[in-house]
Amino acid sequence: MDETPFGDDELHEECGVFGIFQRTDAAAVVTLGLHALQHRGQEAAGIVSYDGSQFHVERHAGLIGDTFTKQAVLERLPGTSAIGHTRYATTGGGGLRNVQPFFAELSAGGFAVAHNGNITNALTVQRELQRRGSIFSSTSDTETILHLVATSAARHFVEKLIDALSRLEGAFSLVGLSSKKMVGVRDPLGIRPLVLGDLEGSPILASETCALDIIGADFVRDIEPGELVVISEDGIESIFPFQARRPRFCIFEYVYFARPDSTVEGRNVYEIRKKIGGELARESHVEADIVVPVPDSGVPAAIGYAQEAGLPFELGIIRNHYVGRTFIQPTDSIRHMGVKLKHNANRRMIEGKRVVLVDDSIVRGTTSQKIVQMVREAGATEVHMRIASPPTRASCFYGVDTPEKAKLLASRMTIEEMADFIKVDSLSFLSIDGLYRATDEPSRNKLAPQFCDACFTGDYPTSLTDQDGTENVRPLSLLGGAG
Amino acid sequence: MDETPFGDDELHEECGVFGIFQRTDAAAVVTLGLHALQHRGQEAAGIVSYDGSQFHVERHAGLIGDTFTKQAVLERLPGTSAIGHTRYATTGGGGLRNVQPFFAELSAGGFAVAHNGNITNALTVQRELQRRGSIFSSTSDTETILHLVATSAARHFVEKLIDALSRLEGAFSLVGLSSKKMVGVRDPLGIRPLVLGDLEGSPILASETCALDIIGADFVRDIEPGELVVISEDGIESIFPFQARRPRFCIFEYVYFARPDSTVEGRNVYEIRKKIGGELARESHVEADIVVPVPDSGVPAAIGYAQEAGLPFELGIIRNHYVGRTFIQPTDSIRHMGVKLKHNANRRMIEGKRVVLVDDSIVRGTTSQKIVQMVREAGATEVHMRIASPPTRASCFYGVDTPEKAKLLASRMTIEEMADFIKVDSLSFLSIDGLYRATDEPSRNKLAPQFCDACFTGDYPTSLTDQDGTENVRPLSLLGGAG
Amino acid sequence: MDETPFGDDELHEECGVFGIFQRTDAAAVVTLGLHALQHRGQEAAGIVSYDGSQFHVERHAGLIGDTFTKQAVLERLPGTSAIGHTRYATTGGGGLRNVQPFFAELSAGGFAVAHNGNITNALTVQRELQRRGSIFSSTSDTETILHLVATSAARHFVEKLIDALSRLEGAFSLVGLSSKKMVGVRDPLGIRPLVLGDLEGSPILASETCALDIIGADFVRDIEPGELVVISEDGIESIFPFQARRPRFCIFEYVYFARPDSTVEGRNVYEIRKKIGGELARESHVEADIVVPVPDSGVPAAIGYAQEAGLPFELGIIRNHYVGRTFIQPTDSIRHMGVKLKHNANRRMIEGKRVVLVDDSIVRGTTSQKIVQMVREAGATEVHMRIASPPTRASCFYGVDTPEKAKLLASRMTIEEMADFIKVDSLSFLSIDGLYRATDEPSRNKLAPQFCDACFTGDYPTSLTDQDGTENVRPLSLLGGAG
Amino acid sequence: MDETPFGDDELHEECGVFGIFQRTDAAAVVTLGLHALQHRGQEAAGIVSYDGSQFHVERHAGLIGDTFTKQAVLERLPGTSAIGHTRYATTGGGGLRNVQPFFAELSAGGFAVAHNGNITNALTVQRELQRRGSIFSSTSDTETILHLVATSAARHFVEKLIDALSRLEGAFSLVGLSSKKMVGVRDPLGIRPLVLGDLEGSPILASETCALDIIGADFVRDIEPGELVVISEDGIESIFPFQARRPRFCIFEYVYFARPDSTVEGRNVYEIRKKIGGELARESHVEADIVVPVPDSGVPAAIGYAQEAGLPFELGIIRNHYVGRTFIQPTDSIRHMGVKLKHNANRRMIEGKRVVLVDDSIVRGTTSQKIVQMVREAGATEVHMRIASPPTRASCFYGVDTPEKAKLLASRMTIEEMADFIKVDSLSFLSIDGLYRATDEPSRNKLAPQFCDACFTGDYPTSLTDQDGTENVRPLSLLGGAG
Repeated sequence: MDETPFGDDELHEECGVFGIFQRTDAAAVVTLGLHALQHRGQEAAGIVSYDGSQFHVERHAGLIGDTFTKQAVLERLPGTSAIGHTRYATTGGGGLRNVQPFFAELSAGGFAVAHNGNITNALTVQRELQRRGSIFSSTSDTETILHLVATSAARHFVEKLIDALSRLEGAFSLVGLSSKKMVGVRDPLGIRPLVLGDLEGSPILASETCALDIIGADFVRDIEPGELVVISEDGIESIFPFQARRPRFCIFEYVYFARPDSTVEGRNVYEIRKKIGGELARESHVEADIVVPVPDSGVPAAIGYAQEAGLPFELGIIRNHYVGRTFIQPTDSIRHMGVKLKHNANRRMIEGKRVVLVDDSIVRGTTSQKIVQMVREAGATEVHMRIASPPTRASCFYGVDTPEKAKLLASRMTIEEMADFIKVDSLSFLSIDGLYRATDEPSRNKLAPQFCDACFTGDYPTSLTDQDGTENVRPLSLLGGAG
Repeated sequence: MDETPFGDDELHEECGVFGIFQRTDAAAVVTLGLHALQHRGQEAAGIVSYDGSQFHVERHAGLIGDTFTKQAVLERLPGTSAIGHTRYATTGGGGLRNVQPFFAELSAGGFAVAHNGNITNALTVQRELQRRGSIFSSTSDTETILHLVATSAARHFVEKLIDALSRLEGAFSLVGLSSKKMVGVRDPLGIRPLVLGDLEGSPILASETCALDIIGADFVRDIEPGELVVISEDGIESIFPFQARRPRFCIFEYVYFARPDSTVEGRNVYEIRKKIGGELARESHVEADIVVPVPDSGVPAAIGYAQEAGLPFELGIIRNHYVGRTFIQPTDSIRHMGVKLKHNANRRMIEGKRVVLVDDSIVRGTTSQKIVQMVREAGATEVHMRIASPPTRASCFYGVDTPEKAKLLASRMTIEEMADFIKVDSLSFLSIDGLYRATDEPSRNKLAPQFCDACFTGDYPTSLTDQDGTENVRPLSLLGGAG
Repeated sequence: MDETPFGDDELHEECGVFGIFQRTDAAAVVTLGLHALQHRGQEAAGIVSYDGSQFHVERHAGLIGDTFTKQAVLERLPGTSAIGHTRYATTGGGGLRNVQPFFAELSAGGFAVAHNGNITNALTVQRELQRRGSIFSSTSDTETILHLVATSAARHFVEKLIDALSRLEGAFSLVGLSSKKMVGVRDPLGIRPLVLGDLEGSPILASETCALDIIGADFVRDIEPGELVVISEDGIESIFPFQARRPRFCIFEYVYFARPDSTVEGRNVYEIRKKIGGELARESHVEADIVVPVPDSGVPAAIGYAQEAGLPFELGIIRNHYVGRTFIQPTDSIRHMGVKLKHNANRRMIEGKRVVLVDDSIVRGTTSQKIVQMVREAGATEVHMRIASPPTRASCFYGVDTPEKAKLLASRMTIEEMADFIKVDSLSFLSIDGLYRATDEPSRNKLAPQFCDACFTGDYPTSLTDQDGTENVRPLSLLGGAG
Repeated sequence: MDETPFGDDELHEECGVFGIFQRTDAAAVVTLGLHALQHRGQEAAGIVSYDGSQFHVERHAGLIGDTFTKQAVLERLPGTSAIGHTRYATTGGGGLRNVQPFFAELSAGGFAVAHNGNITNALTVQRELQRRGSIFSSTSDTETILHLVATSAARHFVEKLIDALSRLEGAFSLVGLSSKKMVGVRDPLGIRPLVLGDLEGSPILASETCALDIIGADFVRDIEPGELVVISEDGIESIFPFQARRPRFCIFEYVYFARPDSTVEGRNVYEIRKKIGGELARESHVEADIVVPVPDSGVPAAIGYAQEAGLPFELGIIRNHYVGRTFIQPTDSIRHMGVKLKHNANRRMIEGKRVVLVDDSIVRGTTSQKIVQMVREAGATEVHMRIASPPTRASCFYGVDTPEKAKLLASRMTIEEMADFIKVDSLSFLSIDGLYRATDEPSRNKLAPQFCDACFTGDYPTSLTDQDGTENVRPLSLLGGAG
C-alpha cells in the first residue's frame, strides 16, 4: 500500500524439502510436511511420487493448503514414496518451469530431486553442459544437478550422484528419489538444515523438525554436514563422500528463518531467540516502560528481552494475518493515507509510554521507518529500537533472497545514520559475539567461525565462481536459480 | 485433518460493516476498512458504490486481499460513496446470493444495506411479506429489511427506513447507502458495535476502530444504542427513533470477537483481555512453572495471567498461519496419525513443566482435547486449563454462528466432567462476575444486566419470535440468515 | 478482425426454452434439449429442477456443452422435473442476473419461469410494481412475469398466472415449473414457437422439434397461439385464457432463426428455405456459371436456387467453424491485412466464373461488403447477390436483437444504393409475396397478414407501450430485457 | 452420449505448423495462421517468438480463438519472427509438456522447432541419447530433433540441423526458428504438406494455403520433398541435403485432412473431393432418390456424386456445430435414449426416399452404424452407403491418430460383413485406382506408388524402426509422440 509494501522489506528463505519412503499415502504425508514448512517458501510447491512402476509429478503455484490438499491432485500422485519442495520465488519469467522437484527419465531410470540452498557455480557448470549438448528446460540450479547425474560416466546410480555432487560449490540440502532409493545430502559445510525422521518405520527427510511434529513422526537425528544417506529396502546407509570440512551452519536460521518450535542442529529455535533477547537486553540497556515486539518474528526475542530487563512484555502492535495475494494499486489519494495493511499500533497500550521495540533484523529500513512512525503517532514518548541480530551488510548466495548489497541499509549507513533514518531515540543491534553466545558458543572464532554468518560479516565460506569477475556482484538467487 | 478439523470448533462472528461518504476512491477505502475487519468474517465480501448517477455492486467469495484488491474489481466500483460488508458463512446453498450488501432499485431510488447482527423475527416478517407478493432472492435477513423499506407506506426515505426498522427484533448494526445519504443504525440494545470515524472530513461508519486505524482516520464516537445517524451533504443528523432501553452490548466481543487493538464502547479490547487474565489468576490459582496461551486468541489473557501470577509467559504452542482453503481428505492411515495442521507444541519449552494453558472459551471441547493431548505428549507433567470466560451454555441468536445448545460441551457436562473429558489436571472458567469486573463493572446486575451475556446465562434480552414453539431451538444463523 | 468483426453483423434470436415433466435425470435431458437449441442463444443458460421437496437453480455463462454437461453441475440439479433456457445476451452489466429461468419462493410455493420473446410493456409494468413495493433483482422482463404472479390477488396458482399473463403485451412463449405442475404458454399471436413432445410418457415443452429429435422424443403438436397447457400428474389440460386473435407467427423463424431440421407450425424449415431459393431464382433470374451460398445460413436457399435455375451448386466459400471466445485486438498492421476469420473463398472454384451469391438477409451490410470483395479477389468475373428475404427495414421488438432502425442498411438506402455499397453487379431481394408463397400462402393478406413480418414491413402486431413517446425508438432487447 | 461418443470414431490429423519471418506483430499473424489450421489439431497450441534479443514461449490447451487471441497472451510474445503449432492430442499424462513448439537454449543460441508428421525411429534415437546423458522433458519426437541438434558435432547451426535430420526416419514437415534464421524442411518423401508464402515481403511457412488466405498472403510454392529452406536477412536459400527419393505425399490429406479451400501439391482439395464423388458414382451406381452427405466432411464428395449421378443433393442430415468440451456422463436412462449430439436427420427430406449416404471413410464403424439407424428411423426406404475412399485397413505411423489395426472395421470384415454390421442395403468403397484417378493419375503405379496410401494398402514407404520386433504393432502416435 505504498510503493514498497511491507512484504517487500523482508528476507525470504527460498526452500523447504520433505520426503518419505515406503508409506501408504506418501503424497498426502508429504503435503502435510510441506504445509509445516510453508514458512520456508510460499509461492509454489511440487511433489513427485513413485508408485512401483511410474513416477508422477505435480507442480503448482500457491500455498500448499490451496493446491496439494485437493483430492484430485493427490489422486494424481499415487505411490508409497514421494518427495516434495516448497519455494519462495516463481519470478524470473519461467512460470512453473523452475518449481521443484525436478524429474528426469535417465538411462538408469527415473530420478527426482529437490533442494534447499544455492549452487554458487551452477551457471558455470551449466554453460559447460550446454557445450556438450545438454538441453536445460529451466534456469534452476537443481536441474544442473540432474544433468550432472545424467552425464556422469560413473556406473551405478549412487556413484553418479556422488560424481555430480563433487562438481558443486555452495549450499545444498537435497532429497532425491529413484525407483529403488530415497537419498538425502547436505553440503560439506552443512549450511542448510536437513533432518532424518521416522514414522512408524518409514524413514523421512525434512528441512526442519516441525515437519515431523505435524504428522507425529519421531526425530531421529540431523543429517550431518557432508553426509549422504541412501535409504532403500535394505535400510539406511550413511556415506561421507566429500573431503571433511569444519561445519558452518547458517546462523540466520536461528535468527529468523526456522520455525520457533523446530530444533535444528541440537538447538531449539525459540530458546535461542529468547536468549538473543536476553543478550540484547544486557548489551543495550535503556530506561523504558514496556517491551513491544514487531510481530510475529520479533516476539520470542522480545519475551527474552522483557524477562531479562524486568519490563512488561506487551502486544503493542497487532498483526493482521489475513493477507491476500493481490495488492491495491494505490492512487495518490490512497498513498498519502499511509495505509497499515499488516501492522497496527494499539494506542491504549502505547500512549505516554517509553517503548522498546524488538525486531529480528533491518533489511532496507523502510518497514522499520513505518513501524516507528506508527508507534510515535500512537503516542509513545520514546522509541528505542533493538535488533535481534548484527547489521545485515552483505548478500546471501546460499539460498536466501536478499537485495543486492547496495540496497541493504547497513551497507551504506552507520548505526547513528540508521537511527536518524528510521527516526528512533536509540538503535542497537546485537553484537556478533552476543549472537554466538546466544547459541551457547563462547564467542565467534575468528579463525574458524562456527557458523556461516556471511550476511553479517561478508565472510563467505565457499567460492562464488559464478560471481567472479562481475563488477557489481548480484545474488544468483535473483536469477531464479536458488532453491 | 480429523473428522472435526480444528477450525470447526470455534465461534464465528458473522459480519463486519464499513462505509464512507464523499471521498475519492471510496471503494478502495472500503476495501482497506474491510481488510481490517476480516476477523469478523472471512468467507465472502461485497461492496456497493454510488458514482453520482449509478450504483455498482460487487460480491465475491474469499478474502478481501484476494478479491477486492484487484484493480479490475475496483474499477467496476467507481464513485465517492460506498459501503461494504464481510461475512463468515456462504453455506446454505445460496452461493453468493446471501452475500451483502443488498441493493435494490426502489421507487424512491436505489438503496443498499449491509448489516451485522441477526433479526430474530426475520422469518416471521418474511412470510408476511411473501403473502402480500414480495419476492425474496436470498435467505438473508438483510433482504427482509430492504423489502420492509420498499413496501413502507411512509413518504420519505428516512421515514420508510424507521418504519421498517421498527418492525425488527434482535441485533442490528447496519449501514445503508442511498443516492443522497449514508445511514448508520444500532438496535435499541446496541448488541453489536458501530463507530463513527472521520477521514479528513469524510464521515465513516465501521464495526470497529481498527478499521479506522488502517487508513489513518480519526475515531469520532460510538454510534449509540438505538441511534440512527443520517449522513448527507448537510452534515450528520442524529435520530433516536426507538423507545429507549437500557443498553446491553455483547460481552463476548471483549472475550473473543473484536480485534485486540480496537476500542469498543470506550474500552480497549486488549486491556480487558489482560484484566480477564488477571481475574482468572486471582480466581483459580494453581502452582505451575509456565503460562502458555492457545494462540492467537488466548495470548492477551495469558499475558495478564502470567503478570498477575508472577509466572513466566512462554510461547509453548506455535500456530501455523498458512491455512489454505482445502483440507486433505483423510484416509485411515492419515487419520490415525493425529495430524496437527494448525498448532504445534514446542517440546523444549514444555518438557518436565507444570503448564497453565489459557484459552478464550470451550465450544464443543474437541479442540481443547487435542491441544491438551499434544501438550502432554510434549512432556508436560501437569496441565491446568484456564478459560477466559464463563462456560458457554447457550446458543447466540444475535449474529454469531454457534452450534445448537446440545452440542455445547458446557450445556451437557459439569466442570468436573469437562475436566475429565479434556483430560486436564484442573479446569477453571472465569466467573460471570469476574468477567464483569474485568470490564470495570463491580459485578453483574442481575435485575438489569449491563451486557448481553446470553451465551453464558441463557438470558436473552429480546424476544426470539422465529424460535417460538420450536421444540429444539436452533440458531437462526444456521439457516443462512445472520449478518 | 476489423472494427466490426463478422460476428457483429447478424441478427440474433435471443432464446430457446425446454422443459420435461416426471422423468429420471430430468436436468440431463434438459441439457441435451438446450444443446439442440443452442442456435437460439449461445451466451448463457440456466436450468431449474425440482426434486419433490426442493428447487435447484444453476445458471452459467457459456455454451451448454462447456457448462451443464459437467457431472458436478448436473449433480446439483436432482429431480424428475426441470426447465431450462438458453440465451444470446449476457450484456447490460448484469452478469448472470439476467440469465433465466427465474425462480422465486412465492407464498403459494416455488415457481420458476423461462421465456422466449419480449414483453413490450415490461418497463411500464415494472415501474408500477416498484411503486407498490416490489424489488427487482434483474432487468429481465421475465422477472416482471414472476412479480405479477406473486402480487396477483387471484386465489389459485393457475389463476394467478393467467392474471399475470393478461397484463402482458408482446411475444412470449414460456415454460414454467411449480412443485406440482409444468406449464407452457404462447402469446395470443403465437409470435414465437413452442411445441409439445413426449418421451416415453413424459411430457416435454420445447422451442423447436430438433430438441425432441436429439433425445428420440416424439413430436405431439404445436402449442397453439394463446394456449396455456397445464401439465400435472393428472395429465395435460389445455386452456385458452386470452381473447382469440388471428395468429401471426414470426416469418423470420423460417428465413433464419429456426434450425433447418425443425418443423415449426407444420412446415419444415429446410423445405421452406429451398422453396425460398426457388422463388428467388424465378423472381430475379440472371445469367451465371455457379450458385455459391454464404455458409451456413445461405445453404438451403442456394440449393433451391441452383435446382430451380439449373446451375451447379458449389461450396465456393468455406466457413471456419472453430470460433473462439476472444478476438485479436487488431493493430494497424493487422487491420490493413483484411483478415478473414470466418469465411474464405475457394479461388479454384470461383476464378473466371459468374457467381450468384445467396445469403439470408442484409443487416448493416458490412459482412456482405467483405464477402463480395473476397469473392472478387478470388477471381469472379461477375458477382450477383441474391437475398432470401425482403429488405430488413425495421427493428424487432419481439425477442430478436436487431440494431436500431437507423443502422439497418435497407432503412437508409434504395436497392440500387445498396448494390453500389456492397459493390455487386446486381442485387435482388425476395419480394414479400414471394416469401409468403414459399410458405404456401398465395400472397401476403394486407388486411390480415398471416405472419408477423414487422422487420420487413414495420407493421407491428401489438402495441409497443414501453416505446411510446420516445423520439428515437430503441429496441427493448438492447436494454437486456428480451428472452 | 454413448460409450463411444461420435467424436471418437474419427481419424485425427495431429498437427499444423505456421511461421513468419520479419513482420510486425509476428505472433498475432501466427495466431491467425494457426486459426486457419485449426482443423489439423484442436486440443492445444503453442507459439515461440523472437524479439531480437530474447525468445518467448507460450503454450496453451484449447482452441486458438480461446487462448492466443487474448491480448495478454500476445503481449507476452513480442518480436518480428515467430513460429507456431496446433495439435490434436494432449493426452498421455504429460499435460502441456508435449505441446509444441519446443525450445532450447543451445550452446549455439536459442532454437525452437515445431513439426507435423511422426518420426518412426524416435524412441530408438531417444534411448541412445539418454544413454549419453540427454534429459528429455517430454515424450514428443520433436524434442528428439532438438537433442540431435544440441549434441551434433557439426560446427554451424544449419550443418547441425542437417546432421540431426539425417538421423530421422518417418514423416516430418517442420519449421524452426533461431535468432537469425527461420527454416522449413520436408522429409524426403514429402508425406506431409508445407508451403511457402509471402506477406508483403515477409516469408511464411505453413501447412496449408488456407493459412495464407486468412491474412491475404500470397502463395509462392510448395516446399519440395526433401528440401530444406533457410530464410534469413539474406533471403531464402534452398538445400537438398537428403538422398533424392520418389515423393509419396499422403493421399488421405485429399480425402479428409486438408481444408477443402486449400491447394496442396498443386491440386485443389475441394475439386479432388468432387472428382472422388464422381468416380464413386461411376463405380457403384445405384437407383436412388436423393444424395445426402454425412456433414461436414462428406459434403464435397456428395456434391460430385449427385452431379455425376444426376440426383438431387439434399442436406438430409443436419450437424450441430456447437460442440462443447465436456460430455454428459450417461446414466442408464440416458444411454438407452440413443442421443444424437452431433447429427440429426431431417425427417421431411428423407421419409419415403431411397437415400445414397456419402461419407469420407469408415474407421471403427460405430458412427456409420448410428447414422444409418438414424436415417432409417427418419423413414428412408433404402440406405446405400458410399465411401469416398478405399477401406481403411492399416494404422498410420506418419502423424495421424489411428486406432490400432485390430480396431479398424475393414481389417477384420469383408465389405459384405461391414454392410451387415452397419445395416445398409448396399455399401461401396471407392477403389484405390478410382482414388488415384480423382487426383488425375491414370492409376496406382504398383511398383512405385505416387502417394503414401499405407492406411489403405499397408505399404509403408519408410522403415518403422520403433515398431520392429513388437508383436502387436501399436501406432507411435498413441504414445504421445506424433506431431
